[in-house]
Amino acid sequence: MTRHVLLVLAHPRTDSLTAQVAARQHARLTAEGHTVDLLDLYAEGFDPSLRPADEPDWEDREKTYSPEVHAHMERILAADDILVVFPVWWFSPPAVLKGWIDRVWNYGFAYGRSRPRLAGRRLLWLALMGGTPEEIERLGMAEVLDLLLRTGISTYCGLPDAEVRALYGTELTGTAKELRAARVAELLAASDTEVDKGLPR
Amino acid sequence: MTRHVLLVLAHPRTDSLTAQVAARQHARLTAEGHTVDLLDLYAEGFDPSLRPADEPDWEDREKTYSPEVHAHMERILAADDILVVFPVWWFSPPAVLKGWIDRVWNYGFAYGRSRPRLAGRRLLWLALMGGTPEEIERLGMAEVLDLLLRTGISTYCGLPDAEVRALYGTELTGTAKELRAARVAELLAASDTEVDKGLPR
Repeated sequence: MTRHVLLVLAHPRTDSLTAQVAARQHARLTAEGHTVDLLDLYAEGFDPSLRPADEPDWEDREKTYSPEVHAHMERILAADDILVVFPVWWFSPPAVLKGWIDRVWNYGFAYGRSRPRLAGRRLLWLALMGGTPEEIERLGMAEVLDLLLRTGISTYCGLPDAEVRALYGTELTGTAKELRAARVAELLAASDTEVDKGLPR
Repeated sequence: MTRHVLLVLAHPRTDSLTAQVAARQHARLTAEGHTVDLLDLYAEGFDPSLRPADEPDWEDREKTYSPEVHAHMERILAADDILVVFPVWWFSPPAVLKGWIDRVWNYGFAYGRSRPRLAGRRLLWLALMGGTPEEIERLGMAEVLDLLLRTGISTYCGLPDAEVRALYGTELTGTAKELRAARVAELLAASDTEVDKGLPR
């Protein structure tokens, strides 16, 4: 079945590994016949700071938010699957992605209704982590991400079909320069595996 | 002893409970003879999106970051104590505060040196949580905040004298309108207690 995928990218450099992973998955999904809406938060100049226009009003779940936020809501509603590709900074997503949640995944839209509006969508959080699985494990970072993203966001918003998956060792400084191209190829291949597991087609 | 306190505030409304807590602690510290540098992230128009100028370079811990970031670093270095007052949105700080960490608590400044530059400073994360302690406990949110803020940031940056403290039930919609003023007074008094415990003077 053809699916419409909202592909969210949160990295400031177009030549970053994060952007390469997103481009690779964009190309794969398109080649398979799916349609992709690329939401490159930096390229679109998304402002992550929630202001009063987008503050939830607990007494009015029908509140009209800012036009920018409503446009983002439409893009989420149009999607069958949501694939979020981001680096882990300080155990958590970059501010630009946190702000997309703060502003767009708002009351009355993403949560606060007996029948969740986003139900039925699949969500894959694909996290690029600099450390090794052992370091991540030791620091308890995987649990934090899982609680933060899956329990705290996806499950809360009625999207049980959600996963956090990770690419490890994405920091290439420790890899000798002549080995980096091979390491990038390895990580891109790993991203295929994670996306195929997280969003089976 | 007189101390210099960097008071970081992360809320878009000047009449918010968060802003009231910050103003109250600002006034108390000043009345006690301490000096306070108020960093109101929204009022100062802080841009939380890290761009390449502020991206860490793992091969150069002496990297010169953007002038804005260096100005923030100076304010941190000038402080004896750092008091961060913020609401918990989605189990974590608002994007504007996350971005302050992403951009300013950078490599070579906040971490990545054998002798941490920020050592000796005390740090209190004062979190305003809408839910009750029981809800927060059930959701595992306190653990997430502690891992995120204390383990992931303060301890990592060589600031062992750091705490995460919370005000609970800060969402006033559930409180009848005629009882809200008393509830606010109660929460402001609770903020005194938490600040006195977290930053004893």
